[in-house]
Amino acid sequence: MKVVVLVGGVGGARFLLGVKAALNLPPVGPGESPHEVTAVVNTGDDVWMHGLRISPDLDTCMYTLGGGIDTERGWGHQGETWVVKEELAAYGAEPTWFGLGDKDIATHLIRTRMLRAGYPLSAVTEALCDRWQPGVRLLPMSDDRVETHVVIDDPDEAGNRKAIHFQEWWVRYRAEPVAHSIVPVGVEEAKPAPGVLDAIAEADAVLFAPSNPVVSVGTVLAVPGVKEALRKTAAGVVGVSPIISGKPVRGMADACLSAIGVETSAEAVGIHYGSRQTSEDGLLDGWLVAEGETVHVPGVAVRAVPLLMSDVDATAAMARAALELAGAEVE
Amino acid sequence: MKVVVLVGGVGGARFLLGVKAALNLPPVGPGESPHEVTAVVNTGDDVWMHGLRISPDLDTCMYTLGGGIDTERGWGHQGETWVVKEELAAYGAEPTWFGLGDKDIATHLIRTRMLRAGYPLSAVTEALCDRWQPGVRLLPMSDDRVETHVVIDDPDEAGNRKAIHFQEWWVRYRAEPVAHSIVPVGVEEAKPAPGVLDAIAEADAVLFAPSNPVVSVGTVLAVPGVKEALRKTAAGVVGVSPIISGKPVRGMADACLSAIGVETSAEAVGIHYGSRQTSEDGLLDGWLVAEGETVHVPGVAVRAVPLLMSDVDATAAMARAALELAGAEVE
Repeated sequence: MKVVVLVGGVGGARFLLGVKAALNLPPVGPGESPHEVTAVVNTGDDVWMHGLRISPDLDTCMYTLGGGIDTERGWGHQGETWVVKEELAAYGAEPTWFGLGDKDIATHLIRTRMLRAGYPLSAVTEALCDRWQPGVRLLPMSDDRVETHVVIDDPDEAGNRKAIHFQEWWVRYRAEPVAHSIVPVGVEEAKPAPGVLDAIAEADAVLFAPSNPVVSVGTVLAVPGVKEALRKTAAGVVGVSPIISGKPVRGMADACLSAIGVETSAEAVGIHYGSRQTSEDGLLDGWLVAEGETVHVPGVAVRAVPLLMSDVDATAAMARAALELAGAEVE
Repeated sequence: MKVVVLVGGVGGARFLLGVKAALNLPPVGPGESPHEVTAVVNTGDDVWMHGLRISPDLDTCMYTLGGGIDTERGWGHQGETWVVKEELAAYGAEPTWFGLGDKDIATHLIRTRMLRAGYPLSAVTEALCDRWQPGVRLLPMSDDRVETHVVIDDPDEAGNRKAIHFQEWWVRYRAEPVAHSIVPVGVEEAKPAPGVLDAIAEADAVLFAPSNPVVSVGTVLAVPGVKEALRKTAAGVVGVSPIISGKPVRGMADACLSAIGVETSAEAVGIHYGSRQTSEDGLLDGWLVAEGETVHVPGVAVRAVPLLMSDVDATAAMARAALELAGAEVE
C-alpha cells in the first residue's frame, strides 16, 4: 500500500510514527515492508539564521522517525547542548531567541553547504536521511524558497503594520500579537518538489496529519498543483482534526485560524478543507474527529475516534482509522 | 610609540602579549596607553570547512589577547566543546580531522555571514574584536583570499605530486609528507588590507614575531607592497628568531624551511630575511637570537637574549630587547 501524508512539525512527526506502526513498520528507523509511506513536509517555516538554512519541520520529522528526537520537548536532539547559541549571544549576534542547538547546527551546516553547492532541498533531505533512516520518504513540499510571514501591528509605529517571519511570531512572540494575515511568501512561484505530485497520483490513501491547518498543511496545499493532484487522485483523502473540543491539541493553531477567518473547531476546519465530492475546490473524502464530538461536514464522511497521540499504539489506532476511512484497510 | 608586528598564530599571539606588557599595557584586554600596537596577521592558513570561513591565526591572536584562549593547547577556547564536530562526523561529513570547536563555530558563523554580506575580512575582524577587546589593532594581511598550498607526493598515484591546503598538511598529516614547495595561492593578486602599509610607514618599530618564517611571516611578506613598505619605513625593522639551537621552538617550521631551501638555523633564517642596509631586497636592521648562539648576518645587528616565551615577563623582556634593537626604547 502506498500512503502519502501531508505534515508539519511535531504533530506531523508523531502522526507518522503511528502511520508506520499501523502498517506494521517499526515506528522508528527503517524496516522491511510491502508498504510505502511518503511524507510531504511543510517548508514554509524554513528560515535563514546566522547564515544557516534551517528546515524545522523536515528536521523534526527526520529526527523523530530516526530515533534522535528529544521526546520530552518534541523538537531538537536528545542530549542537545547550546554552546554555539550562547557564544553567538556573547557576540551580541541577533537573533538570540531561536533554539539553535549544537547537534542541530551540524545538520544545518550540511544543508547550507549543499544548498550553496547547488543541490535542491529534496536532494539535501535525502542525503541527511541517509544517516537517520526514517523509514519514510521525506519530501519537502517544494525545492523553491517559501517563507511564511505574519502581518502584525508594528509596536514601534502606532497604526502601522509589519510582516515578520513566522518563526519570529511563533517562537519569539509565542503567537501573541494578533495575526492580521498569514502569507506564504514565494508560494505562488513555487513548484512541488520532485515526486510530490506523482506520490499523490499513485497513492492508495492520502492523509492530512493533525498538523496546523494554516501554516503546516495549509502551506503544503498552497503549492501550485498540490490541490489539483489531491482532487484527481484515485486514493481516498482523509484529514485528521488537530482541534479537539474547540482547542488545538498542541501549539497555537487558534491564532492562525483566526487570521484566516476560520473558527477553532473540528467542524470549521473540516469545512475549510472542504468536500472532494460536493464542492469545486474541496479536498476531503473523510474527516477524523475526536471521540464524543458531533461534527457535520457536508459531503465528507466524518468519523469520531480517540484522537490523542499519547503513545505509539494510540497513534497507530488513529492512523488505522484514517486509512480505513480512506478505503485503504490494512490486513 | 607605534609598533607594528608581523605575526602568525600561537607564537605570534604569545609574542604580542609580551609586546603589550613591554609597553606597559595589560597583556590581556584593552588598556589606556600612549602606545599603539598593530599586528599584521597571516591569513594564508585561512580555509573553508563545512561552509564556514576559518581564520586560524586571526582567531588565535584575538582569543589570546582577549583572554579567551585555551592556554594549555595554545589555540581554541577555554572550556571548548566538540558537539558539532562529532555530529558532523556522525553524518560522515568530511573533513573530520580539523579541530572545529563549538565556541569557535560561533566566531566562524559570524565571519562567514559578514563575508557573504560583502564585508571585507578587515571589517569582520574589527567587528569580532569589538567583543574580545584585544588591545591591539589586528589587521589581516589582506582582505583578498590567499590560501597556502603545499605540494607533496601523491600517495595514490606513484610518481605524481599534488597540492593540498596547508591546513591538511599541517593538521591532518602533521607536516610529515615532504613539502616539495609551498605556494600562497592568490597572493600575487592580493592587496594589503586597509591600514597595513600606512601602519608600517608610520611605525616607530616594526617587529617580526618568532612565527614560522615561511608560512606565517613569509606569507605576510609575500603580499605585494609589504616588502617595499618595510624597506622604505623610517622605523627600525627587527626580527625575532623562531629557531633556537637549530630547532623550531614550536611547530614544524623545519619542514617548511626545507621546502624553500633554507637551513633550520637562526643564522640561515636571518640571512633569508636579509639586510635592509646592504642588500637590495633585505628587510632587517636587527635580528634577535637565543642567548648563547653566535650568529652572523651580514649587514644586520644581531643580539642574543633569552628567547623562550615561558611567561609574560620573559616574553616582555624579549619584546623590550627587540624594540631596543629597533632603536625604539621604552622609558
